[in-house]
Amino acid sequence: MTDSVVMTLDEVHATAVQLLLAQGFNHRHAQAIARTVTAAERDECRHHGLFRISFYVNALCAGQASPDAEPTMSRLAPGIIKVDAHRGFSPLALECGDEPLAELARQQGIAALVVHNALNVAALWPEVERLAEGGLVAFAYVSAIPYVAPAGGIKPVFGTNPMAFAWPRLNRPPLVFDQASSASARGEIQLRLRDGKSLPEGWAIGPDGRPTTDPKVALAGAQLPFGGVKGSSIALMIELLAGPLVGDVLSFEAGEDDRAKTGAPCGGELVVAIDPARCAGHNDSTAQLQHAEKLFEKILEQEGTRLPSDRRYEARRRTTIHGVRVPKSLYDTLQILRAGGSVKRVEDYEGDRLMARA
Amino acid sequence: MTDSVVMTLDEVHATAVQLLLAQGFNHRHAQAIARTVTAAERDECRHHGLFRISFYVNALCAGQASPDAEPTMSRLAPGIIKVDAHRGFSPLALECGDEPLAELARQQGIAALVVHNALNVAALWPEVERLAEGGLVAFAYVSAIPYVAPAGGIKPVFGTNPMAFAWPRLNRPPLVFDQASSASARGEIQLRLRDGKSLPEGWAIGPDGRPTTDPKVALAGAQLPFGGVKGSSIALMIELLAGPLVGDVLSFEAGEDDRAKTGAPCGGELVVAIDPARCAGHNDSTAQLQHAEKLFEKILEQEGTRLPSDRRYEARRRTTIHGVRVPKSLYDTLQILRAGGSVKRVEDYEGDRLMARA
Repeated sequence: MTDSVVMTLDEVHATAVQLLLAQGFNHRHAQAIARTVTAAERDECRHHGLFRISFYVNALCAGQASPDAEPTMSRLAPGIIKVDAHRGFSPLALECGDEPLAELARQQGIAALVVHNALNVAALWPEVERLAEGGLVAFAYVSAIPYVAPAGGIKPVFGTNPMAFAWPRLNRPPLVFDQASSASARGEIQLRLRDGKSLPEGWAIGPDGRPTTDPKVALAGAQLPFGGVKGSSIALMIELLAGPLVGDVLSFEAGEDDRAKTGAPCGGELVVAIDPARCAGHNDSTAQLQHAEKLFEKILEQEGTRLPSDRRYEARRRTTIHGVRVPKSLYDTLQILRAGGSVKRVEDYEGDRLMARA
Repeated sequence: MTDSVVMTLDEVHATAVQLLLAQGFNHRHAQAIARTVTAAERDECRHHGLFRISFYVNALCAGQASPDAEPTMSRLAPGIIKVDAHRGFSPLALECGDEPLAELARQQGIAALVVHNALNVAALWPEVERLAEGGLVAFAYVSAIPYVAPAGGIKPVFGTNPMAFAWPRLNRPPLVFDQASSASARGEIQLRLRDGKSLPEGWAIGPDGRPTTDPKVALAGAQLPFGGVKGSSIALMIELLAGPLVGDVLSFEAGEDDRAKTGAPCGGELVVAIDPARCAGHNDSTAQLQHAEKLFEKILEQEGTRLPSDRRYEARRRTTIHGVRVPKSLYDTLQILRAGGSVKRVEDYEGDRLMARA
């Protein structure tokens, strides 16, 4: 790939911070978003990395995101805390709720963090990974803009509705998965549109309800749940958990609220943490975590298998040393944004070359 | 179908109770198991209905299940209670834990029930449906005998590992789903073996790792997760939650423990309940539940869609009036068992006619 630029992770972070400040975010939000974006680049989750910066900036420019809202916290019940993001982006809200949730889970055995009024375009694994680094089992659920048709239907109702799960390991980074309940992440379709690639079958249907492999038709139609009816049930569950349960919007309401069509929904998130030590009747989870390693060994002794987060951790080792490769067109866009330039709206998105105008 | 017998639900329940007593269960276990079996017949979940009785009886006859163990309860943390089933079957343990969990969830906002040493061959929806009838959002996770290969592998590691979810509705029965993380329930393969039918593609591989549609080859090989890698992640999560998290066995250990190969694993279960009223900062969940109805309307206005539990509730309306149709061969087996006869072991299972010997 000659049409790319290598950046160190420090450069990614610094570029993101400068860009977000230039676009109007305050220091706390710029830092939190930049940490999230840099973590995604570090782990080669590219559609949540620098590629995603435009979503943050678009929503801010459209007046739909707060550049400086300070999250506020309250205790709703002995086992439940709430963080209101006041229409700020989720990374800062989650960083604020993280430690209080961990403390509560250790005290209560199980606890939940309810996040309100947060714009969420980030991956979910950072929050559950942090909790599992603290020895907790963690779950996160968030809904989105309506992109996904329910099983049997053809019109979008659900968001891509990801859920994440993390399990702590002894002397190793946690086992983590973070997966959309759609057959693919929306970002994966957007990347294929940018790169002129077609989609695998089963990812999407067009506006007429017929299967399509054309990313443009797919983005105008509906994504499909993964695994048919069962994936659709998971999407439905997440829609309820991140919306009505926490007193926040459904995906279709978040879509209506996103008047400028930035693709950055404002809504709720549910994070649950369980302390394994409190589930076994003593205050030490070592035996439970050692026990889980037997399962991982049993899986990995089979050729062709891997654990969900292995690829991310391999990428992390690589990029920490060698940096990341960023497409030249994206790199140029970032420089324009860093100089205070503006971006075309996401709905017009047809590739990096169209993304920025100076 | 001429080769079948119609039974009222009262007859199903009475037959099950008498049969379980005749086989050696005490009254409390016989009643709890019969309630579970009858609920499954009522909702036309046939592979958890009378068909499943042989699993309970086989495990008892093999000396692997307690006929009379009284579950004991303890509080592990402010938000966590434990029920030890002492190798009894799960229905009684879950009935015991049900109300204490509901009370704890209302008090704490979120709470968990950890079930230990329970033989589990029942569906999960009864416990989450009961909790949701009490206004709570509920989750249940259980592992099983190792039947399912992890994504990329060919040897069974995971159980069929079902999870259930329930959402309370105003003036209606709860929305509930209960789904295996395998492409199919094991019982569905066993029913097709009995009925001489082949399997859809994608359900299973043979012992050589190649796809198969032959139920017999599938039962000797490995079932596949639903939805590929994502379903495999769900199976992995459930394996961790119902095993190491709650201090109980993994599926492959439950398989080793099931020395008589009865197909009735002894292990753990995790049930989580959340009180929606405590998640929204007030003590009334009416607005949240009304809000969720908007989602259900949005789904159902599309032709071809339905909500996960609709089919079960339709069956319930039907069977409550008209009773259930039981295959004559199964009916005859039940009569033999009710008279104190014994059954062939599950591993020899090749259809109802082979199931019983007087």
